[in-house]
Amino acid sequence: MTYCVGLYLREGLVMLSDTRTNAGVDHISTFCKMHVEDVPGERMMCLLTAGNLAISQAVWNRLQEGLLVDGQVHTLRDVPTMFRAAQLAGAAVRAVFEADGPTLRAQGIAFDVALLLGGQIGGQAQRLFMIYAAGNFIEATEDTPFLQIGEHKYGKPILDRALTFDTRLVDGVKLALVSMDSTLRSNLTVGLPLDLLVYREGTQRVGLRKRITEEEPYFRALREGWSTALREAYRAMPVPDWVAG
Amino acid sequence: MTYCVGLYLREGLVMLSDTRTNAGVDHISTFCKMHVEDVPGERMMCLLTAGNLAISQAVWNRLQEGLLVDGQVHTLRDVPTMFRAAQLAGAAVRAVFEADGPTLRAQGIAFDVALLLGGQIGGQAQRLFMIYAAGNFIEATEDTPFLQIGEHKYGKPILDRALTFDTRLVDGVKLALVSMDSTLRSNLTVGLPLDLLVYREGTQRVGLRKRITEEEPYFRALREGWSTALREAYRAMPVPDWVAG
Repeated sequence: MTYCVGLYLREGLVMLSDTRTNAGVDHISTFCKMHVEDVPGERMMCLLTAGNLAISQAVWNRLQEGLLVDGQVHTLRDVPTMFRAAQLAGAAVRAVFEADGPTLRAQGIAFDVALLLGGQIGGQAQRLFMIYAAGNFIEATEDTPFLQIGEHKYGKPILDRALTFDTRLVDGVKLALVSMDSTLRSNLTVGLPLDLLVYREGTQRVGLRKRITEEEPYFRALREGWSTALREAYRAMPVPDWVAG
Repeated sequence: MTYCVGLYLREGLVMLSDTRTNAGVDHISTFCKMHVEDVPGERMMCLLTAGNLAISQAVWNRLQEGLLVDGQVHTLRDVPTMFRAAQLAGAAVRAVFEADGPTLRAQGIAFDVALLLGGQIGGQAQRLFMIYAAGNFIEATEDTPFLQIGEHKYGKPILDRALTFDTRLVDGVKLALVSMDSTLRSNLTVGLPLDLLVYREGTQRVGLRKRITEEEPYFRALREGWSTALREAYRAMPVPDWVAG
């Protein structure tokens, strides 16, 4: 399993992924699920992947080698818009489906992959997409300023309640980490370390890319502090008058 | 879908269920999933059900009519221990599986049912069980003082972080309602009104049974207040020193 989340905020993008892959619970490995393609000052794109590791690695390889679109080979480094970038990622998914889908189906293995692609090109708007296994995609908007792939349920309530498009970028980092921590606690197949990327709107370059390990002091303090804050918060809520003390 | 949660606390039990059932998203109904069997002062049992409604209603009907165990017909009103009560509930599930399972299987419908059974008989310990579709069951302990059935993921993080066996009963009510609210927000097939039962250890009678509607002032205030408290909590968390303001 995997958990990846992308936040689409007025100030920029926050992309966060875990690194655990598993084939059964007794075969666990660490793989980076975050891929960055950038031409600093001109474009920045970040791709997060979930699903079957062979499929998602094949997608990323095809994106790097380039895909034939309208008679020309394109990569994320030369597409003119983020919409075209999402189309290219979808085309890579479809190319892998065409190559591997029949054999996977014959062996009863689902074609399971999902991508988050966020970024900005030149003076165009920053955008964040979720690409499905069918190669089609949706886009985050101000109404729904986050997208998740993989094990999304445990980490969703905090985002539903606290995140808006106007959330500050630094607060977005905190909320993404809390959302990830909720998932880490409940699903063993989502695991540390984490890969975090922060992008500030209008910069066209990676603002921060950081690997967060078990030992990272801030993340440790956040996990501890958040649990304490929640306990204090529910204790401070009034007692219903229909419950006897 | 459904969400039911049972808390097993030193001070007593909190049982909470939603009331939504659905056959597809265009066929939604309201059904009580909480059933109580009590002999005030002698025993109190509360059963919550999730899964296929026809199966769970059949289970409850068989429990009320009584099941033949070791040559005698038993109900929850006459079993001598809570362990026997859980066995009886499991026997009811198996009886329904025997009666309806072959036809369901022939029509490609899963035998989907899960139960929470909490209660206390006489001077024995209070207990809380989760009964599976196979009729076998597990029991909550001081280490894991809550059990969930149905759509359990959205409501689990708050319980993982804040609930312990020593949580006060009134605080347990708040946490169960917060857990339910997180689920209501994310899964349309879990819906109001809610059924809440509070049992105080050693009383052998229902302490409180309450239906909570959309209009219930306390629940409205809790939903609002909890979101505010979370927003304040994450804003108060320190900013990581590796993120530029």
